[in-house]
Amino acid sequence: MADAVGLIGGGVIGGGWAARFAIGGHDVRLYDPAPDAAATVVAALENARRAHRRLTLAPLPAEGSVTVVGTLEEAVEGVAFVQESAPEREELKRSLLAAASRAAGPDVIVASSTSGLLPTRLQADMEHPERFAVGHPFNPVYLLPLVEVCGGERTAPATLERAAERYRRLGMRPLVVRREVDAFVADRLLEALWREALWLVADDVATVEEVDDAIRFGAGLRWACMGPFLTYRIAGGPAGMRHFLEQFGPALALPWTRLTEVPELTDELLDKIVAQSDAQAGGRSLHELERLRDDCLVSIIQGLRVHDFGAGAVLAGYERALFAAAPAAAAAADDEAPLRLHSAVVAPEWIDYNGHAHESRYLQVFGDATDALLRHVGLDLDAGSSYFTVETHLSHLGQARAEERLHVTTQLLGHDEKRLHVFHALHRTDDEALLATAEQMLLHVNTRADRVAPAPPELLERIARIARSHAALPRPERAGRAIGSAR
Amino acid sequence: MADAVGLIGGGVIGGGWAARFAIGGHDVRLYDPAPDAAATVVAALENARRAHRRLTLAPLPAEGSVTVVGTLEEAVEGVAFVQESAPEREELKRSLLAAASRAAGPDVIVASSTSGLLPTRLQADMEHPERFAVGHPFNPVYLLPLVEVCGGERTAPATLERAAERYRRLGMRPLVVRREVDAFVADRLLEALWREALWLVADDVATVEEVDDAIRFGAGLRWACMGPFLTYRIAGGPAGMRHFLEQFGPALALPWTRLTEVPELTDELLDKIVAQSDAQAGGRSLHELERLRDDCLVSIIQGLRVHDFGAGAVLAGYERALFAAAPAAAAAADDEAPLRLHSAVVAPEWIDYNGHAHESRYLQVFGDATDALLRHVGLDLDAGSSYFTVETHLSHLGQARAEERLHVTTQLLGHDEKRLHVFHALHRTDDEALLATAEQMLLHVNTRADRVAPAPPELLERIARIARSHAALPRPERAGRAIGSAR
Repeated sequence: MADAVGLIGGGVIGGGWAARFAIGGHDVRLYDPAPDAAATVVAALENARRAHRRLTLAPLPAEGSVTVVGTLEEAVEGVAFVQESAPEREELKRSLLAAASRAAGPDVIVASSTSGLLPTRLQADMEHPERFAVGHPFNPVYLLPLVEVCGGERTAPATLERAAERYRRLGMRPLVVRREVDAFVADRLLEALWREALWLVADDVATVEEVDDAIRFGAGLRWACMGPFLTYRIAGGPAGMRHFLEQFGPALALPWTRLTEVPELTDELLDKIVAQSDAQAGGRSLHELERLRDDCLVSIIQGLRVHDFGAGAVLAGYERALFAAAPAAAAAADDEAPLRLHSAVVAPEWIDYNGHAHESRYLQVFGDATDALLRHVGLDLDAGSSYFTVETHLSHLGQARAEERLHVTTQLLGHDEKRLHVFHALHRTDDEALLATAEQMLLHVNTRADRVAPAPPELLERIARIARSHAALPRPERAGRAIGSAR
Repeated sequence: MADAVGLIGGGVIGGGWAARFAIGGHDVRLYDPAPDAAATVVAALENARRAHRRLTLAPLPAEGSVTVVGTLEEAVEGVAFVQESAPEREELKRSLLAAASRAAGPDVIVASSTSGLLPTRLQADMEHPERFAVGHPFNPVYLLPLVEVCGGERTAPATLERAAERYRRLGMRPLVVRREVDAFVADRLLEALWREALWLVADDVATVEEVDDAIRFGAGLRWACMGPFLTYRIAGGPAGMRHFLEQFGPALALPWTRLTEVPELTDELLDKIVAQSDAQAGGRSLHELERLRDDCLVSIIQGLRVHDFGAGAVLAGYERALFAAAPAAAAAADDEAPLRLHSAVVAPEWIDYNGHAHESRYLQVFGDATDALLRHVGLDLDAGSSYFTVETHLSHLGQARAEERLHVTTQLLGHDEKRLHVFHALHRTDDEALLATAEQMLLHVNTRADRVAPAPPELLERIARIARSHAALPRPERAGRAIGSAR
């Protein structure tokens, strides 16, 4: 078990911290005077568990406990780390941090989640202020990796390293802010965009939904993988960052935002940006960066398609239109032997630590192919008719990697009133390589009576029709296989 | 074949349009006086083809041709749509658009890709200016869905509808900008963020890489699915948008950006934002929005993991650390026969239309049990050592339902230098009911050489130790099973 942490404040941010620390294996003691603090924390923890179950197959440590305690002192006494997430009021934070510094051990790091208040001022009343740091996370704290780490004038350099390392062990990405400024780095950028967004709504140029759409269908997709500088370096084309800056430099003088105070693009600033951008690109060519960007965008859009949201919903709509416009190719296929009823693309989240799809994902695709077969023969779930798989024999012959296209061919090996015996073969579509096979035995179930029962006659008739056209197919080499012995 | 389009300008944006139109089935004629225009267009088309192969399985139309022509007139005569993407200089664009309006048919829409110049000024010298519209895309044009559509004073309303419909048929997401303002909606937001980013670099607060990191590990991930308003609505917690605005309203007065001219958060503006935000949420509860956001974030981060980039690289690093830390935790249980190394809870998203866990989820749990066994015997992925499953025989004996606790017992049936033959049994923990079994054959792989190879001696020693303690166990009834025939 990792060491215990003390949290001050259990709102959206504090609750998010509680969830991230608990999932990271830390016992959490949390203090918040609000009567609904416990409910907020429980809700965050539920969301976080659900998100992490989907996020990773890696072995997370045993979840820590979360205890809501009645005083600040109970929360921080004896813990190894303190994180304060009170409302964004300097006086309040100063007094809470001072109280925490008196109750916690003298070398326990006390961090503040402030979005932009200056650490030098926040640490002013603390005992041992050298162990104070800002650790500014982003909502949802249990999922977004960024945490800005920034010290005040009296913060020891080692404090920043220790805080960053602790956050890193929680799966986060610390960004050490080297110069203490109001709002640090991220919130300065966010505030500029946010204030402009408020102007657009105040001036009736756009509604809040239109502002959001202007981000999430465009630049927002890029910002999930690359920030503005690398994006614009690529936009500069073969001539790169200097070209981009020179081409768009004059636009800085245009009234393109309501926010004024525009930096002057001096030769010195231009040289600095170009040199830093070269360092950031790390020798990668324009071509490499373009493909990296495109690959990331494709994966992001496909990820959103799963949830039929944002750019993913746009893609889904486009695909529906393409299918509607395509000649009715897939409709017929009744006497096809074998049947080809299901295709899929290897989703990024299917990939395991070996770099190819997790074994269970092959069975997922085979299961989807079985479902496609059942739909094809007219299975009517609403009528209480279903098939349950009772036995599966899987053979792995090749590896499916992210974003490869796959399709399944299906041969009916046998059937009777209650049983369906099928053999699936999974192919990589681009080169027809055989990646895996699955032999399955299914039983027809009357789901209303919850027991095995003969399938309805119209279903059996359709199955018999397929069986006749499959009768001439050779029996697959791997059908009827058992696993042999190793020694 | 869709109708032909004429493009003026073949830089990064014009080349992107050429690719999007060609992939959408349009023949493209493109004019650009630059000698490298053809090369830019070819490169964009290659990138776009690669991206679309990965993006969708839907039946795209036959790709249109792209011809680089010698004059503006050749590009636009006889086409059904004109898109201008010249450099961002008003005089230049005005004269190109005027020339295009003389050469193209009188009711052919002539659109400009301008990022922010005013349409009323751009259309000033055109013939039939009523068919002019801004169609402002985002790089890479062939992938990002957003296109801002905005008319000038002399633009006919039908022009905006026709342009939007044309873009929509290309798989894009038109956003009609209802009020003509410099930089429209998106680039006003982008400019504000960009100018602040330039200040941060100019003032040496951060490097260009640190600015990018402050976006792509944090807010940028959210902006790929939700814009700032919906994000902040959720951040407001149960009290919603009004609470958020009231809580963070005072921060508008803080010096949190170098850009000034801050909008005043009047009651009227606050009411407007709250009403528009309610409309945007469309009746979805906070809980629903939180889960939608989290699901999208998980998918985005997993998508980036495939490319080992940005937040995906952070997740991959975290997972490596979790795997490295896991063996120490599981250390105990050595002579246990059978071994009990893995437990799980049935997640709600595992449940399929039959009301119990999808068949693939049983294999997911068995796969996790195999991973636990491999960690238990000391598998070292970093040393290039791994086991791949080559064959699995699954039997279903009962049903796992949502939230039930499961555990797996594991018996070693055999092994040699390269092979590992295991038998797992999945039990419902509460009543010890046997729900499923999995017999698996695994092969040891040297992942550096990418081929089957003997396992390292220390691993084999540990495996042999388990084999000795499992030798006395009876052979499971279902081991060595093959699927029988149905008729």
